[in-house]
Amino acid sequence: MPEEKEGTARPVNPGAEQWLEKPIPCLDHGFVRLVDYMGNDAAIVQAARVSYGAGTKKVSEDRGLVRYLLRNVHTTPFEMCELKFHCKMPIFVARQWIRHRTANVNEYSARYSEVKDEFYLPDPDVLKKQSSENRQGRGEELTDEQKRRVLYLLRADYAQEYSTYEQLLGEIELARELARIGLSVAAYTQWYWKIDLHNLFHFLRLRLDSHAQYEIRVFAEAMARIVKDAFPVAWEAFEDYRLKAVSFSRLEIEVLKTRQ
Amino acid sequence: MPEEKEGTARPVNPGAEQWLEKPIPCLDHGFVRLVDYMGNDAAIVQAARVSYGAGTKKVSEDRGLVRYLLRNVHTTPFEMCELKFHCKMPIFVARQWIRHRTANVNEYSARYSEVKDEFYLPDPDVLKKQSSENRQGRGEELTDEQKRRVLYLLRADYAQEYSTYEQLLGEIELARELARIGLSVAAYTQWYWKIDLHNLFHFLRLRLDSHAQYEIRVFAEAMARIVKDAFPVAWEAFEDYRLKAVSFSRLEIEVLKTRQ
Amino acid sequence: MPEEKEGTARPVNPGAEQWLEKPIPCLDHGFVRLVDYMGNDAAIVQAARVSYGAGTKKVSEDRGLVRYLLRNVHTTPFEMCELKFHCKMPIFVARQWIRHRTANVNEYSARYSEVKDEFYLPDPDVLKKQSSENRQGRGEELTDEQKRRVLYLLRADYAQEYSTYEQLLGEIELARELARIGLSVAAYTQWYWKIDLHNLFHFLRLRLDSHAQYEIRVFAEAMARIVKDAFPVAWEAFEDYRLKAVSFSRLEIEVLKTRQ
Amino acid sequence: MPEEKEGTARPVNPGAEQWLEKPIPCLDHGFVRLVDYMGNDAAIVQAARVSYGAGTKKVSEDRGLVRYLLRNVHTTPFEMCELKFHCKMPIFVARQWIRHRTANVNEYSARYSEVKDEFYLPDPDVLKKQSSENRQGRGEELTDEQKRRVLYLLRADYAQEYSTYEQLLGEIELARELARIGLSVAAYTQWYWKIDLHNLFHFLRLRLDSHAQYEIRVFAEAMARIVKDAFPVAWEAFEDYRLKAVSFSRLEIEVLKTRQ
Repeated sequence: MPEEKEGTARPVNPGAEQWLEKPIPCLDHGFVRLVDYMGNDAAIVQAARVSYGAGTKKVSEDRGLVRYLLRNVHTTPFEMCELKFHCKMPIFVARQWIRHRTANVNEYSARYSEVKDEFYLPDPDVLKKQSSENRQGRGEELTDEQKRRVLYLLRADYAQEYSTYEQLLGEIELARELARIGLSVAAYTQWYWKIDLHNLFHFLRLRLDSHAQYEIRVFAEAMARIVKDAFPVAWEAFEDYRLKAVSFSRLEIEVLKTRQ
Repeated sequence: MPEEKEGTARPVNPGAEQWLEKPIPCLDHGFVRLVDYMGNDAAIVQAARVSYGAGTKKVSEDRGLVRYLLRNVHTTPFEMCELKFHCKMPIFVARQWIRHRTANVNEYSARYSEVKDEFYLPDPDVLKKQSSENRQGRGEELTDEQKRRVLYLLRADYAQEYSTYEQLLGEIELARELARIGLSVAAYTQWYWKIDLHNLFHFLRLRLDSHAQYEIRVFAEAMARIVKDAFPVAWEAFEDYRLKAVSFSRLEIEVLKTRQ
Repeated sequence: MPEEKEGTARPVNPGAEQWLEKPIPCLDHGFVRLVDYMGNDAAIVQAARVSYGAGTKKVSEDRGLVRYLLRNVHTTPFEMCELKFHCKMPIFVARQWIRHRTANVNEYSARYSEVKDEFYLPDPDVLKKQSSENRQGRGEELTDEQKRRVLYLLRADYAQEYSTYEQLLGEIELARELARIGLSVAAYTQWYWKIDLHNLFHFLRLRLDSHAQYEIRVFAEAMARIVKDAFPVAWEAFEDYRLKAVSFSRLEIEVLKTRQ
Repeated sequence: MPEEKEGTARPVNPGAEQWLEKPIPCLDHGFVRLVDYMGNDAAIVQAARVSYGAGTKKVSEDRGLVRYLLRNVHTTPFEMCELKFHCKMPIFVARQWIRHRTANVNEYSARYSEVKDEFYLPDPDVLKKQSSENRQGRGEELTDEQKRRVLYLLRADYAQEYSTYEQLLGEIELARELARIGLSVAAYTQWYWKIDLHNLFHFLRLRLDSHAQYEIRVFAEAMARIVKDAFPVAWEAFEDYRLKAVSFSRLEIEVLKTRQ
């Protein structure tokens, strides 16, 4: 079954094509790479036209229609587009990522294959103290000495646990599925991850947010670059009506009205 | 946003390409038409190799790997392929079809657009009596006179209800969303329907079955023709391990053992 | 397997209990009836505390925590509650309803059982002209004469198609799955419908909206009454941060800032 | 919002009640605990009767109906029952578990809360060599000396990495979301996990299998004990038609026919 690459009668997406097989590096050993795609901005419009009929057929209205759909939570036409990525990331990032259940996943299995000696070692710039205001986030700077200490400790532990892993697999020949249990969540894993555009927007909305952990945000940003090129019209609408929109609660709306 | 059709660096699927834009007629006014696709047999193998590692890399083993996956219910690699169809079918068929929740759908809306004068009139050959054994199915033959009577009654009702629809929309200018409530479930609707290969196999397994209503089976058979060409290796495995496989219960297995 | 009803060590929800087996009539023949439930406001808090740890344990903070979760799109704790309804509605309402794929459904089957002579005949008050501004909605009033005409035409068609149905099932003994194809989408169907609270909120947000068709809104409102009693804290948060919240786009936010 | 426990008009499930708040220990620090449930065997029958109509109403047929449903892949009535568990397991087990996407999950977050000093140390009896035939499994016995060595190495690494964790959180006050990245996948996590009976059966079928890793099988077996008591009729059908059934491929069926 050789992969044939040639002409196609399918809709082509030039913005996506340029990213095929061009991995975007993420963190120290990771990446996001677009492997395949389905659809383009026109495919969203095409699906919407089935639902909303012949009355909206002028080409000039395409952008308006996409914006209308996104603004009014008519999300099904965005589900008609798919992106398939090959990604490599630390296990603790994969654990946050996999919580989004509406994607298809094939992950590297440490039961079948050996794990490589690759662990995430943070850049000193991103090491921060526990935030005192935000229970889940990062706050003040560490001293350079403290940063060195953090990296020294992590590096030593990674070396130690990987040495254990090699001993368990080597002399002892322990089953792979057991030998890997001492490896830390900083070890890298990889997967194929396929998702439709509507659900990818949902993922990006949550993972591009400033409250998302920095390490997963890096991957979200890599995918956002690809989506922006592949679906420029949909991306613009997503930015305007979701990413940079602000929701006011019932109470805030009442206050706003009083002020006018 | 004109649709560009040209070269692509994506994996191409020649078996699928030949079906693009070539609708397969179904029943008297319906069809199934492949609009777009993602992946091929090699994409299934590629995804599986991420999970199961480098040890299985010989090309000669591709077919064996696909069969192994399907036999052992490793279904995620099949989710890496997608098919997008444009289909037109009677409403009562659409109502059975939509019960499969793992697909993406954009359906023609009778709130936005007018419904055409197209109703399903069964071929006389498929008109049968209620089965006395099978509460959900068809049984003995009708007489020719009875068949004529059935078609006469249905045709008259279709004409009557469509005439009402036209009056409600015409002189009275009733809202479309109300005018359509007298139309029967034999009226045709249409949709874009996108599904991954694993879930399509599940759909086909249920809807190609002899207990499925004939009218939806026609659509399942049309899609099966396309899948067979597009994913020949996966289709063969699906036939051998699902469609034409037979499951024996615990009791039957015990009886079988005694016989030997 | 008799249904036993007695004491339980499960969390009880008094607000839900009062609705059990008390159907809320909807339209002329329909209803919404709560059949079973899982969880209460405290169950949402309990699930959230697993995620967010021991730091938030004061009882006084429960309401605040629920509101924080909903405001910040931490939706998983709301998925820990379930509601199971028995509903009866016209087929065209069921067709809109079923588009929400994240519920569990068991629908009455016209292949197995006979359909009753029950069709939705709108109240004269809700009959309106097609809106000229809103392609999907209702606009100006009809005259009394026009309303009478609409109801006369629908009633006549219902009688005619049901008479056909009886003939096909009676003398001709046509298979049930075929005999029903001439019945209109105004015919009533029914189902068991089970959904978690997060997805029910999503459903209600879309179907309580003024753009939703009146006939499905009636059912959404019936369920909203039940939810309001069963999950008063979550409902209040849902109203404040979703239902009565207003989202401003990037552009509108920029304009708002300029005004200050 | 105090949890009220008292009488209920809901269907009660005595087999499930006895397991409420009675955790089943799993591995060295883990457990499975039933927190709440919805439905019983009668609820499956009740939902099926909506679909298949009044013709099947004799109480004596309940067991037969449940078996018919399961045998013929009519899975929706089983979705009408829910089980909610509180579980504690090593991270590598949680990573296999979460691949089942059709459940609701609230997991303990190491970004919000500190991780305890609890790591999975296998019982010596379950330490085995890598299987030579089965790329994913365990094979021959280790010597006692080798077993001691494995446990010594793991124990030392766990102590080392937890000491690092304490230093990073303590003196250095590193953000929790970073301090935890050196902890191994043997560390325990916990979650609330809610799933319907149909999808739980699917989970159990895969995770009770002899090819599933021993450590997740332990949790599957704990849940199986609860399901067996809570849904005795459905469990029996599940065992007979799924768990202990055998599927023969098209080829095998042909061979079987020849032999007779």
